Amino acid sequence: MPFNEVRKDYLLDRWVVIATERGRRPTDFAKKVREKDKTSVCPLCPGNEHMTPPAVLVYLKSGKDIGKTKDKDGFRHKNWLIRCIPNLYPAFTPPKGKISRRRVMKSNDLVVAVGHHEVLVESPVHDEHPANAKISQLVHVINGYIDRLREFSAKPYVKYVSIFRNHGLEAGASLSHAHSQIIATPFIPSVVEEELEASRKFWTKNRKCVFCDILEKELDGPRLILENADYVVFAPWASVNPLEFWVLPKKHEITLLEMSKSEVKTFAKTLKTCLNGLKKLLNDPPYNFGFHLAINKEASKYYHWHLEVYPKLAIWAGFEKSTGIYINTVAPEAAAESLKKAISS
Amino acid sequence: MPFNEVRKDYLLDRWVVIATERGRRPTDFAKKVREKDKTSVCPLCPGNEHMTPPAVLVYLKSGKDIGKTKDKDGFRHKNWLIRCIPNLYPAFTPPKGKISRRRVMKSNDLVVAVGHHEVLVESPVHDEHPANAKISQLVHVINGYIDRLREFSAKPYVKYVSIFRNHGLEAGASLSHAHSQIIATPFIPSVVEEELEASRKFWTKNRKCVFCDILEKELDGPRLILENADYVVFAPWASVNPLEFWVLPKKHEITLLEMSKSEVKTFAKTLKTCLNGLKKLLNDPPYNFGFHLAINKEASKYYHWHLEVYPKLAIWAGFEKSTGIYINTVAPEAAAESLKKAISS
Repeated sequence: MPFNEVRKDYLLDRWVVIATERGRRPTDFAKKVREKDKTSVCPLCPGNEHMTPPAVLVYLKSGKDIGKTKDKDGFRHKNWLIRCIPNLYPAFTPPKGKISRRRVMKSNDLVVAVGHHEVLVESPVHDEHPANAKISQLVHVINGYIDRLREFSAKPYVKYVSIFRNHGLEAGASLSHAHSQIIATPFIPSVVEEELEASRKFWTKNRKCVFCDILEKELDGPRLILENADYVVFAPWASVNPLEFWVLPKKHEITLLEMSKSEVKTFAKTLKTCLNGLKKLLNDPPYNFGFHLAINKEASKYYHWHLEVYPKLAIWAGFEKSTGIYINTVAPEAAAESLKKAISS
Repeated sequence: MPFNEVRKDYLLDRWVVIATERGRRPTDFAKKVREKDKTSVCPLCPGNEHMTPPAVLVYLKSGKDIGKTKDKDGFRHKNWLIRCIPNLYPAFTPPKGKISRRRVMKSNDLVVAVGHHEVLVESPVHDEHPANAKISQLVHVINGYIDRLREFSAKPYVKYVSIFRNHGLEAGASLSHAHSQIIATPFIPSVVEEELEASRKFWTKNRKCVFCDILEKELDGPRLILENADYVVFAPWASVNPLEFWVLPKKHEITLLEMSKSEVKTFAKTLKTCLNGLKKLLNDPPYNFGFHLAINKEASKYYHWHLEVYPKLAIWAGFEKSTGIYINTVAPEAAAESLKKAISS
């Protein structure tokens, strides 16, 4: 399979995957982009496993335990709990064998889109989204993230792993079955790179993790939404999106790989509580969430993984796109108050 | 009037205006954000001037000449060609008198939203959008941009002037009457700052403007869409948006302020041609455009103004938002070919 190109802007540190294998011609956009599914058959529902590529990871019920396995070509496991499958239209594609750094980084403004792009089907139940999922099911989802993250992190050509979720058509979810996506990239994305750089500087100056510092400051402040044994949830000081919130672990770690069983369970509960609060407050609004993490061990002193949740309630228009300044019509303090109430009601 | 706050992210060089004066409570988002106007009365149409604040700039027909004037409080000019009015819900607000730099820059992560936010009504004709406007009318619009840019650039608290246009509901245009917006900010936005920095570095190394260099390279390449005496239009190498195109002036200038009468007219024709091509190709799609320019004279060697047009055909979702990497499903070369054909057909 040929690789996509990843191109750098003439000046900005902004990279774009030119992913044309979906076979879209420019004029295809003349039609409404958001057509309804022509078929009512969901390719991610049980019984339709043949409609997807073979799963690279399947959790199966196995008495009281969870069995982990794979599909084989031409064979699809049934009775699964979660399934992880390659994206049919991957933005990043795995190499056939070893691939040298030089073959990946073509030039200063051109990288070959080596990597992975997978869909994690979160439940056999079409509508079992995190806001209303069973905690045991959400634990499988998070363990699924961790399993894929562990595998991708170990690959020499992978420099970052993005785990994210799109909820609702307006937030870019083209399939309504509960699912997340995992993309492994051959370079560190600019947003994460800038976070790494700033947190490294903060550490050099203060010998302290900037996220541990943020956690302390937000803990008793007007932007706090929820606190439990392992996590703090708050509306960030400069929220780009109305009702945005972040989940920050109290334990200083750069990735999810070091989470204990109990931390996974608490994370599942925390996520469900917050997303259910958002759902109740705004009648199931569209949203995106994305994990921020580091897989390069040298960042372990100064970086700190977290989850950012962006409700999709506003449109980024000409001003935001051409300047990088955002206008948010809801103060983070008001957002925190509303979410707090919605959670406890 | 109290100023809005502009807050910096904990780590990123990303600024957010917390603009709550529209009186939105978080729960207001539970309703569909995009409600239809409850009234069919357009506040920007002739006859409804009393529904807007007094204009700060009005072009009037005056025999063969164009008269430039202002409204007075309680008085609104009729028979205008274009009108520029303060935005009813400004993101940035002018100070009453002089304001010191220290009162504006509160701290490293907090700036007071001093500045301007205006709406430029492009025509008395509700639907006279650039794709189908008379060239003479578009010339008024561009001259209006230049007049406001000149006034704002001279103010000591203004460090940048963003001129942009949102077309269509999905691209954030809440009013359908042909209009642009102008926002003057007390700091240089991060996207422009990064462009300035990169172009300054390029100049130091090569003693050449990087945009003049881009122009030469794109002129005979597969991404060229249009060339005339004064402008080059092309799909940029790393287009973030499907069908994105840029208009670059051949004359090396940092702002629009040095445009000759003939260049204004050619720009009007170029803009109309390209936007009409896009309209024909994709059945009047939503889009945003924004000028990139510099008002600090020290940038005059290395910076070069241009216009970036972003058709709104895709949704930026969890991956884009949490990494800053974009996935574009249309190759810029294919976009250029389609737009070229649409323009010449």
